[in-house]
Amino acid sequence: METPDFTRFSQAHRVYAESLFAKIRALSASPAPNRGVTRFGYSEVEDRVLDALEEEGRALGLETSRDAAGNLLMRLPGRDRTLPGLFCGSHADSVLDGGNFDGLAGITAALLVVRDLQARGVTPARDIVVTALRCEEQGLIGSRAMMGKLSEADLGRRWTPDSPTLAERLTAQGYDVARLSSGTPVVDPKSIAAFLELHIEQGVRLTQPNGPRVGLVTGIRGMVYHRMIHCWGEPAHAGAIDFPFRHDALAATTRLVAGAWERWSQRVAKGEDLVFTTGILETDPTAIFNKVPEHVRFSLDARSLSAETREGFIEEFYEDAKRLEAFHGVRFEFDPAGRNEPMESDPALLAKLEEGAALLGIPVIHEPSGAGHDAQTFGLEKIPFAMVFIANANGSHNPDEAVETDDFLAGAAVLTEAVRLYTA
Amino acid sequence: METPDFTRFSQAHRVYAESLFAKIRALSASPAPNRGVTRFGYSEVEDRVLDALEEEGRALGLETSRDAAGNLLMRLPGRDRTLPGLFCGSHADSVLDGGNFDGLAGITAALLVVRDLQARGVTPARDIVVTALRCEEQGLIGSRAMMGKLSEADLGRRWTPDSPTLAERLTAQGYDVARLSSGTPVVDPKSIAAFLELHIEQGVRLTQPNGPRVGLVTGIRGMVYHRMIHCWGEPAHAGAIDFPFRHDALAATTRLVAGAWERWSQRVAKGEDLVFTTGILETDPTAIFNKVPEHVRFSLDARSLSAETREGFIEEFYEDAKRLEAFHGVRFEFDPAGRNEPMESDPALLAKLEEGAALLGIPVIHEPSGAGHDAQTFGLEKIPFAMVFIANANGSHNPDEAVETDDFLAGAAVLTEAVRLYTA
Repeated sequence: METPDFTRFSQAHRVYAESLFAKIRALSASPAPNRGVTRFGYSEVEDRVLDALEEEGRALGLETSRDAAGNLLMRLPGRDRTLPGLFCGSHADSVLDGGNFDGLAGITAALLVVRDLQARGVTPARDIVVTALRCEEQGLIGSRAMMGKLSEADLGRRWTPDSPTLAERLTAQGYDVARLSSGTPVVDPKSIAAFLELHIEQGVRLTQPNGPRVGLVTGIRGMVYHRMIHCWGEPAHAGAIDFPFRHDALAATTRLVAGAWERWSQRVAKGEDLVFTTGILETDPTAIFNKVPEHVRFSLDARSLSAETREGFIEEFYEDAKRLEAFHGVRFEFDPAGRNEPMESDPALLAKLEEGAALLGIPVIHEPSGAGHDAQTFGLEKIPFAMVFIANANGSHNPDEAVETDDFLAGAAVLTEAVRLYTA
Repeated sequence: METPDFTRFSQAHRVYAESLFAKIRALSASPAPNRGVTRFGYSEVEDRVLDALEEEGRALGLETSRDAAGNLLMRLPGRDRTLPGLFCGSHADSVLDGGNFDGLAGITAALLVVRDLQARGVTPARDIVVTALRCEEQGLIGSRAMMGKLSEADLGRRWTPDSPTLAERLTAQGYDVARLSSGTPVVDPKSIAAFLELHIEQGVRLTQPNGPRVGLVTGIRGMVYHRMIHCWGEPAHAGAIDFPFRHDALAATTRLVAGAWERWSQRVAKGEDLVFTTGILETDPTAIFNKVPEHVRFSLDARSLSAETREGFIEEFYEDAKRLEAFHGVRFEFDPAGRNEPMESDPALLAKLEEGAALLGIPVIHEPSGAGHDAQTFGLEKIPFAMVFIANANGSHNPDEAVETDDFLAGAAVLTEAVRLYTA
């Protein structure tokens, strides 16, 4: 067997990757100029992207197919075709005016895995399945449809306020909605040995000066969220209503949010994994500066690798809210909490990634994923998963998202070695 | 001299007051049904109201005139006409869809003072000047125009976004804008011995169960305010960007506002007079629950009878903001602070009000005014002032504002006795 050689890998695949990125970018550019790409899930643009990717797979000699949810599966046959396949890929869709690499980088990397193994004359022990999932950005829809797990809430979702619901989209395109929400997978989880995904990092750990540019994901943070919490108080004259007579919805809310921030910082200081965000907070449009606000609405998003930390944090939040209700004479009204369970990466897969990085001499860090990923869907089905992150500047979900080809190639090389080791 | 008799006062004036309230209400009802009254300053409606009030004054034999700012002055001649007059009244205008008593109660009470003294055959030592001021609700405009103190900012103000500026209104109605903003009063402050005003309370101290329904105002709180403070941070993924890498505009802002609330409560506990309100706080319309907010705008309104307390509080607020800027890596951007100086009621006038209430056996409380009033304008000119508050349910500046005639008559009776004592 050849000695791994990252330099060789880069040279061989740079042009291929860059031209594929350029091709898909051109196919899915946002209508407004300089607004990145828009590849909504289950749209014609996403269809076009999947068709182009399938063409790439065919050119590499892969066996291509679509599952009953429209996800694209492209198999490199292994030595024993009766073994469950190693799935490797990411999602083909994007957000509105998003970046070109979010999702597409992982599919392209999976194609490079195949291309590199082919070039090296390696036939894997089991099938390697390049996987292009649909509609991740709207709530891991493609992977969850693959597992038959679409919910009523999923089916009613619209990507934009005046666009059709997911159920309407699926029906119009000939998919069997009942089947995809039956609870029974359309691809047998037993046929999936593991899921490996390369993805751009959506944090900033990999863009610190002089630090590693590739991350190995230890797990995906679980989440508890409220999209809309209301606080109801009573309007009053800002100058005339004194301390004991006020029912100030904003005073109570800012104290609740600032208090949660203190609790967060205390938990982080103790070494717990936690992030907490209130992304939306607003008084009414009729609010004026000299009136005590009667109503505030706000959101909450808390994530942790530990379900215990997450639940402890949210319970304290509810207790704080109760205490502030009594103190301020206001009322908090919570919408039903949404939850995703945290998922740990598979230690064996993680070890292969570590080994691959070490063989190539590519420095890596270990880090949690704060964003959700399709890997979670596979994790819920007890399918082992692991992820590789690559450095990404300017944040994600915006047109300025930026990945350097060198970093992409380094991540793809690590992924390739891990796949090779896993399927040796 | 007759013994004061509150019962007699009530009986004599109840019908007069109620029919005058009803008449003005009918003249100024809001266009939309059940939306209270709308008497914008320097509007035709306010003109009609002033004309009707002038008619009432003439019927009582008062010498009526308008000053160069359009304020209505109606004199009951005193024994020595060379002495400065005792001005007594309030404002004729209202907010959009406001209550009938805010302003009008004070003018009606001043007419009752005259009516009662006339009925008792009392001729005051000096002129009593029933005063109906214009356009208080837009920033004490009528009284400030009387003192020649209109500013460029005043002249540019519009009551609603598509209505003319104050300068345009005044010019269209033949007023001399330059004169009213010249700095030189159009009514000589030396001709005003004092200003006495009855007004509805805009707080809730007088509507506590079994408590006094009349308040004697110890002073008008000074104010410092920012209509619009910005906090600028950086957008980030709510799950992926950890504690040390965040520049969360909302975390910094909620901590600033909640911290100011703590400082407020500490000062109140120490017995300082202070109210603090953030009436507006909002993230951007594009904010979403799973994104760290990059921008927040909010307001601040802090008032106190003590300039020292007010300035101490706002200085601490600025210091907190600086500390939070450094900690969170955000930037606060303050619009220029607005300030009104606190004004103390004249002790001699207050003593007359106390004496009048004691003579009538009407229980009173002493309280600050948190809202601004025309009395401040007179106070700035070193004219002594005092105010009587009467109980008012359901807050002010809304159609549900509610005054019971008994409370109005009790307040007017106290005012009458104070005027009688002052002009004896």
